Amino acid sequence: MNESLLLEKKVFLFDLDGCIYHGHRASTRAAELIAFLRGENKQIRFITNNSTDNAIDIQDRLLNMGIQVATEEIITATDYIGLYLKERFGEIKVKVVGSIGLKKSIIHHGHVVLDDFSHERAEVIIIGRDVTFCYEKLKMVVNEEKRGAIILGTNMDAAHPGLNGEIVPETGSLIAAIETITSNPIMTFGKPSPYLFTYGMESCDVKASECVMIGDNYDTDVVGAMSLGISSVWLTDVSINALKYEASDTIKKIVKFKSIEDFYMAVR
Amino acid sequence: MNESLLLEKKVFLFDLDGCIYHGHRASTRAAELIAFLRGENKQIRFITNNSTDNAIDIQDRLLNMGIQVATEEIITATDYIGLYLKERFGEIKVKVVGSIGLKKSIIHHGHVVLDDFSHERAEVIIIGRDVTFCYEKLKMVVNEEKRGAIILGTNMDAAHPGLNGEIVPETGSLIAAIETITSNPIMTFGKPSPYLFTYGMESCDVKASECVMIGDNYDTDVVGAMSLGISSVWLTDVSINALKYEASDTIKKIVKFKSIEDFYMAVR
Repeated sequence: MNESLLLEKKVFLFDLDGCIYHGHRASTRAAELIAFLRGENKQIRFITNNSTDNAIDIQDRLLNMGIQVATEEIITATDYIGLYLKERFGEIKVKVVGSIGLKKSIIHHGHVVLDDFSHERAEVIIIGRDVTFCYEKLKMVVNEEKRGAIILGTNMDAAHPGLNGEIVPETGSLIAAIETITSNPIMTFGKPSPYLFTYGMESCDVKASECVMIGDNYDTDVVGAMSLGISSVWLTDVSINALKYEASDTIKKIVKFKSIEDFYMAVR
Repeated sequence: MNESLLLEKKVFLFDLDGCIYHGHRASTRAAELIAFLRGENKQIRFITNNSTDNAIDIQDRLLNMGIQVATEEIITATDYIGLYLKERFGEIKVKVVGSIGLKKSIIHHGHVVLDDFSHERAEVIIIGRDVTFCYEKLKMVVNEEKRGAIILGTNMDAAHPGLNGEIVPETGSLIAAIETITSNPIMTFGKPSPYLFTYGMESCDVKASECVMIGDNYDTDVVGAMSLGISSVWLTDVSINALKYEASDTIKKIVKFKSIEDFYMAVR
């Protein structure tokens, strides 16, 4: 895609962490960019693999950064999975290895969340980033799977960078511990899987060719968008995997900017 | 190897769980087999991937089954790793994600075991089966690795069968969670790695051709022994992976018995 065609798109899909904000700090010009796009009558969706916070948590965080957003514009793995379960299985009994936010979101969609170590059997077990993950939970999950429970994961990211460059383990590493025992691959909903992108497009009633995805993570944001035929803007400055792809051929097909600020300067 | 040549071997290396005993129950005729081999002046070693119990714990367990064994005859991943560290690095500062037995064994070899969350940096972090494994330990390990600590694992088994067929997560699943984040393979000492076999042979002062390994797990006992040129007796009755290998070519080279009892009946 040519840079000059960016403003012909109807829908702008944004990654959040590493793109619109870094932890609790807004990216430079992020607020101005969102305001500008609204002025141009563009539809906006935020697509995040975050499996700890739900849309309401993130709405609050964005508001603190001066960015006003409707919860409907925020598409999280945390929120989507409850909706998916309802459409696929109806309202069911679930165990959740994950945050309070994830549990709340599952309950919000009408499911029953059983206690982690309840003897009652769950039909589905959901794995998200769980700071209370432990050996006994791992044991519970693999034994529930043996008894027939389906295991689903929010996202497959192994880790994300935290404060001062600290490594923060993510859902993908917990999933790896489980898969190593069960030998069954666990389906995940986050990027690069198509679910969140598709849900975003459907909620805007547009086709892939009318959207552009803007993100810093090549493996999730760019690869996921490309697999659906959505154009990508790749922010290279904060990318944790920029070098790995610098030489690839497909990279020539995507628009690259260093940062949200550079992107804003180019389109405004 | 031909079955009739078994008694020409000088050293009998036995796996423990699934071979000599199942949990806290001795295998039928296990005591008689060991007594018979001692009567034939055979040297005996027990080689186990157990990363929770050390040789003294296992000596007690065997004694309760009527099998008298010297601690020197029991070779565990738990005990070996402290010795390896001493030979390779001298006496060092270590963090241990594992059992009290593993920690005691490391200390026994002269190393300093730091508290799990001590700010003091460890030179090496050892991963064993840890029923107190948790998210914060996972985070500690990957961040210590980032700062330069070497991570070593006792064994790579993903799980083992517990009471009533329950799945008991093992060291290998915890290692998978870590490796998924660090992208660095973790070296392990248990079977099928050569370390414990080699240590067993050296302690008996024999060559591989003078030994036979008896075990139920093809992937660890048989594969490990074969890679060193040690003959194998494979106990198929309790094997968790018998079917997987039934058709393989190498299987024709190894002696198969259903159980320790059948093995005893054939050699006595």
